[in-house]
Amino acid sequence: MEIKVVRKVLDVNDTIAEQTRGMLKEKGLFLINMMGSPGAGKTSVLEKILGAINKEFRAGVVVGDIATTWDSDRLSQTGVPVVQINTEPFGGDCHLTANVVKEGLNQLDLSRLDLVIVENVGNLVCPAEFDIGQDSRAVVLSVTEGEDKPIKYPLVFRISNTALVNKIDLIPHLDVELKSFSQNIRAINPDMKIFEVSSKTGQGLDKWVKWLKDQVKAKKG
Amino acid sequence: MEIKVVRKVLDVNDTIAEQTRGMLKEKGLFLINMMGSPGAGKTSVLEKILGAINKEFRAGVVVGDIATTWDSDRLSQTGVPVVQINTEPFGGDCHLTANVVKEGLNQLDLSRLDLVIVENVGNLVCPAEFDIGQDSRAVVLSVTEGEDKPIKYPLVFRISNTALVNKIDLIPHLDVELKSFSQNIRAINPDMKIFEVSSKTGQGLDKWVKWLKDQVKAKKG
Repeated sequence: MEIKVVRKVLDVNDTIAEQTRGMLKEKGLFLINMMGSPGAGKTSVLEKILGAINKEFRAGVVVGDIATTWDSDRLSQTGVPVVQINTEPFGGDCHLTANVVKEGLNQLDLSRLDLVIVENVGNLVCPAEFDIGQDSRAVVLSVTEGEDKPIKYPLVFRISNTALVNKIDLIPHLDVELKSFSQNIRAINPDMKIFEVSSKTGQGLDKWVKWLKDQVKAKKG
Repeated sequence: MEIKVVRKVLDVNDTIAEQTRGMLKEKGLFLINMMGSPGAGKTSVLEKILGAINKEFRAGVVVGDIATTWDSDRLSQTGVPVVQINTEPFGGDCHLTANVVKEGLNQLDLSRLDLVIVENVGNLVCPAEFDIGQDSRAVVLSVTEGEDKPIKYPLVFRISNTALVNKIDLIPHLDVELKSFSQNIRAINPDMKIFEVSSKTGQGLDKWVKWLKDQVKAKKG
């Protein structure tokens, strides 16, 4: 007797994610899925780097929030096209699904872009469970959240390719050592590329921007 | 024609929550549901206050995490009975359900307790959607998360009775005014009792402890 475990919601999501992945491949467009807790500094990082990226490539942003257009208002000031998705009308979803991201992408003129950055809903758990068709996943972790978070919330660290350990400017005011974040991240994911950064001062972000540009170049071929 | 919207999962949860509420009422036991982002400082707040509470009342703690027993290890050192719930074996649930809390309560000797504090999974979205049978809900928000969070994640602020604006010791190092947190919380929930606190220095926590003790007294009758 064969037992089939049908996980319908995730199956449908994965099918749409694969369609998005195929479409992006055809266009040579790179998509990165940025995740992290509320207030980890995802929007602040993007505010700091979009200008530098735009000197070489054309970026678009899809930003997910439960409510408000505050993040897209902030990011629009960098001059890049931004689409805001609010999940509140859809039951206040705690993550972006592949379908919702697809609709966001449809609102961008993709033929004029080289990369799309998706800023996911602030949440260290649920967004990690949903493939949105990305080429790469990044997790942003603020040092103010504590060095134990990679161990306590392992999935997002296990599946991400890069980690931004953010707000390192606050380290002198916290009872924690900076290196303990990398140690705990590597305990979950030995292959993680880790960038210690400050979205306030900009420190360290140039290295992540360089990494990101290399991915965009490779995808364009 | 009558259209019935059946929300089975939430219906089952609410039924169990009501059973828990009835059981707690019978025993004169107060239950508070503490929620907040990863790293907002829920465990640190409890470490600071459990000693003070235990001088007058007998507290127990149920702590939820995706993985690890780190939080319960920390809290056990205060001398109170602690039950750790890991949601990883249950699909890595991003919140505690009424059923899981009920099982946690079963592991405590409730006849010897006056109050139970449930530290929910670190998440500003999902825990707010699940009634666990609590008398009161508290949300912990770290000032490092940014003053916009009550507006962007409104549900947990709408349904909570008290808010702890935590880590106020870091305000001098952030580009944000302390009062903006209260303003944004009140915009969502004008009735919220707000406590500005530091889980590092202990500042302001005595006021929340007093409030908590008053609730426990009232419940005991």
